[in-house]
Amino acid sequence: MMQVSDIKWSVSEKEVAQNAFESAYSREIDALMKEVCEKASAIADLQDVWKLHDFLSARRHEIEGKYDYKYPILIFVFAQLVKEGWLQLNELEGLEASKLSKIAAIARMS
Amino acid sequence: MMQVSDIKWSVSEKEVAQNAFESAYSREIDALMKEVCEKASAIADLQDVWKLHDFLSARRHEIEGKYDYKYPILIFVFAQLVKEGWLQLNELEGLEASKLSKIAAIARMS
Repeated sequence: MMQVSDIKWSVSEKEVAQNAFESAYSREIDALMKEVCEKASAIADLQDVWKLHDFLSARRHEIEGKYDYKYPILIFVFAQLVKEGWLQLNELEGLEASKLSKIAAIARMS
Repeated sequence: MMQVSDIKWSVSEKEVAQNAFESAYSREIDALMKEVCEKASAIADLQDVWKLHDFLSARRHEIEGKYDYKYPILIFVFAQLVKEGWLQLNELEGLEASKLSKIAAIARMS
């Protein structure tokens, strides 16, 4: 069984990880802002307003839960970001091969 | 003490009340949609997105609570709408004088 919570991160790995994390976050936030503006500009009635509210509630909950920069869970965070397309595996170059393979393997799980 | 919940509404009064209620609702919803579009078009960063979400949460809660068309509480509903400016007292012409004076009196309370 993988003990990902015991994985150690070197100083240079932490730097790679922080940059990758911030890149993914920035991409997802940019996409969110674009989507909010599109939805808002298409508002035609009150239902659209409440749909925008529901959308924001769900996205806020999801984003606040997902971008949790803690080393014991970072393998899982990166795997999810790769799976969702906010991060490419090659942006994690500089991490140990064993970390990269764990991230890739978890990202492939459905 | 006013027993507003015992007040009877005639058929013609119900028609006046329904029209006034719908006018106020329509005005407030139009203003809300305009405000949402303005806020959305001014979104510059993630904080603005979450501020829009907070704004929508508060307005939705308020509007869903306020527009409650039930005769036992309608005097209070109209008083609040008058106080907030979504309804003018003269749009309630056709109601009994005693109802109008109750609505006006409650609307003047702070």
